[in-house]
Amino acid sequence: MSLLNETLAAIRPADAAVAAQARDRQARMTKPAGSLGVLEDLSVRLAALAGECPPPLPEPAAVAVFAGDHGVHAQGVTPWPQEVTGQMVANFLAGGAVVNAFAAQMGASVTVVDVGVAAAAAVPPDAGRFLDRNVRRGTRDLTVEPAMTRDEAVAALEVGISVARDLVAAGNRALLTGDMGIANTTASAALIAAFTGADAGAVTGAGTGIDAETLRHKTDVVRRGLARHGLVAADQAPDAGSGSVPAAADPIGALAAVGGLEHAAIAGFVLGAAAERVPVILDGVIAGSSALVAAALAPACLDAAVAGHRSTEPGHRVALDHLGLTPLVDLSLRLGEGTGAVLALPLVQASVRALRDVATFDSAGVTEKQ
Amino acid sequence: MSLLNETLAAIRPADAAVAAQARDRQARMTKPAGSLGVLEDLSVRLAALAGECPPPLPEPAAVAVFAGDHGVHAQGVTPWPQEVTGQMVANFLAGGAVVNAFAAQMGASVTVVDVGVAAAAAVPPDAGRFLDRNVRRGTRDLTVEPAMTRDEAVAALEVGISVARDLVAAGNRALLTGDMGIANTTASAALIAAFTGADAGAVTGAGTGIDAETLRHKTDVVRRGLARHGLVAADQAPDAGSGSVPAAADPIGALAAVGGLEHAAIAGFVLGAAAERVPVILDGVIAGSSALVAAALAPACLDAAVAGHRSTEPGHRVALDHLGLTPLVDLSLRLGEGTGAVLALPLVQASVRALRDVATFDSAGVTEKQ
Repeated sequence: MSLLNETLAAIRPADAAVAAQARDRQARMTKPAGSLGVLEDLSVRLAALAGECPPPLPEPAAVAVFAGDHGVHAQGVTPWPQEVTGQMVANFLAGGAVVNAFAAQMGASVTVVDVGVAAAAAVPPDAGRFLDRNVRRGTRDLTVEPAMTRDEAVAALEVGISVARDLVAAGNRALLTGDMGIANTTASAALIAAFTGADAGAVTGAGTGIDAETLRHKTDVVRRGLARHGLVAADQAPDAGSGSVPAAADPIGALAAVGGLEHAAIAGFVLGAAAERVPVILDGVIAGSSALVAAALAPACLDAAVAGHRSTEPGHRVALDHLGLTPLVDLSLRLGEGTGAVLALPLVQASVRALRDVATFDSAGVTEKQ
Repeated sequence: MSLLNETLAAIRPADAAVAAQARDRQARMTKPAGSLGVLEDLSVRLAALAGECPPPLPEPAAVAVFAGDHGVHAQGVTPWPQEVTGQMVANFLAGGAVVNAFAAQMGASVTVVDVGVAAAAAVPPDAGRFLDRNVRRGTRDLTVEPAMTRDEAVAALEVGISVARDLVAAGNRALLTGDMGIANTTASAALIAAFTGADAGAVTGAGTGIDAETLRHKTDVVRRGLARHGLVAADQAPDAGSGSVPAAADPIGALAAVGGLEHAAIAGFVLGAAAERVPVILDGVIAGSSALVAAALAPACLDAAVAGHRSTEPGHRVALDHLGLTPLVDLSLRLGEGTGAVLALPLVQASVRALRDVATFDSAGVTEKQ
């Protein structure tokens, strides 16, 4: 059995009985019932995922930054040159990027995975946490042909699965998604449209910052890419039909057609985490679009997924709504790299810590409300 | 000069030149300009507060939980018995409350200050971080008479100032507000109405959880208290006049009339942090209402204030809007104790860490956008 199929077969739904146990404990803790809001529900989900209440503390934590380039860059969707992807890989390895600063503050490790960078990254010989898993040197232009072959897409998915496995085997109890790839919000928009049925105009955003004219052009590129691969929702096509989600019939085909190598790897990373029953904190729109792919392949994988934050990209909101995930942080970030996931990490840890350590009314001798 | 006046005199506005320096550095860091959203502005504010760029990392961090009781409890505004305030003080000291769990996760210390608990707390002899600064054993009923005398209000303000001073002298570089006091959302609502001019109905909420009938009654209690002390906004009174904020002419008088001893102490804590130029992270509605008092006494103190989170209390939104502060966390919490402030701590630290540690385009050899 392939690594992908083996992983899909290993993903089981969360444990409803343990969820009930966790809910019961939350109700007996020395605080008004429900007063921890979103974090109360989160602790219940994490207990159900782990199959024990309280669940293990989600630490140590590891960010995996998957880097890849995009053939659609040739269409002029961004003012950033493609070489920046590789330069930022070097910056991550030197510890100079925002994700490094955030991860250092939160006590998380950063592993950089080249799954599809166009120019081989200049990796310092002493780079400790670099994995060369390059599947191909950037995708093809999705407006012209499929961005990847099916085999390439599966290979990149399996890169993500194996990185998740290895990080868990190394003792990590929380995985965080990160990404780097100039032009990757274009591929994300196309994936979100394909996997939710939303219009290209509703899911294409300014990414790292483009002007209104470039945004119109980028939206048109996304729309053409979707049309090129038959991924336009039926109820948006002139001959409107059922309205079913275009990518549903063949998720890997849709991923290969308009996705990125880092998207495929992040989808695999989510699946790998779910198979290991370890929570995976999603970063922004790249992760959100990748999680749609993962959920199409194995819906129960979402029991392991925590939405770290909501970025300013309009497609991210659409993706999170479709996934049914509530973001923990909402601070108008639009950086990627895993930065939003890392910011959410202490909140995730705190939710488990409370479920684990807080006294009950009985044990603390506190009178309940009348 | 009294400690209060000395503190007010020491509060100076943040340094605009340093703010410009921080903004310039943010623009040269290896990330798209503005992509850190709210955290970018926050780092600029913290640099301006410290008067140096980058500012010191906001750690170690100390939560001060100010506890007090409320005479208005007699009006039946909450189903929780008053004795719970003292019981929770004991729970904090035993490490069993949510704020303890959160603070342990984030590496912050917790100091509990009895500034107005009705029944002397049963403090274990080995309680390390308990400060007995009781000004009086609970306030008077604000619907009948002023909750405090002016002298009591000033004494409680000065408790907060001295706790802030001592925590900074002990090396802390971030202060966090916490509170405990059954019925204290009633006093908070009254303060918010008095200091913003909002109607009682717009600022009174369910607190830790009450039914619709109790909420109607609680709102009426707040309205009666405001009327009793002449703190109804002119444009809400039958003979509507200028619409100026009722408490503006005499902030300490308004605090004494309808506030709590912990509100006064937290207002002093904010002033003390500002005088020391150390950031103070505000928790929920209790802190928000107290910050209104502090800002009325010394508007520049808000340069030191960071809104940790936004709670579900409707008055908290009104207070934050009036203060012009953007909450960092918004997760439907309604617990108090400092829990929302503690959750925000790593975000505050991360914003400074990024400003301090991230490479610039020049230093990292990364190409800028074209």
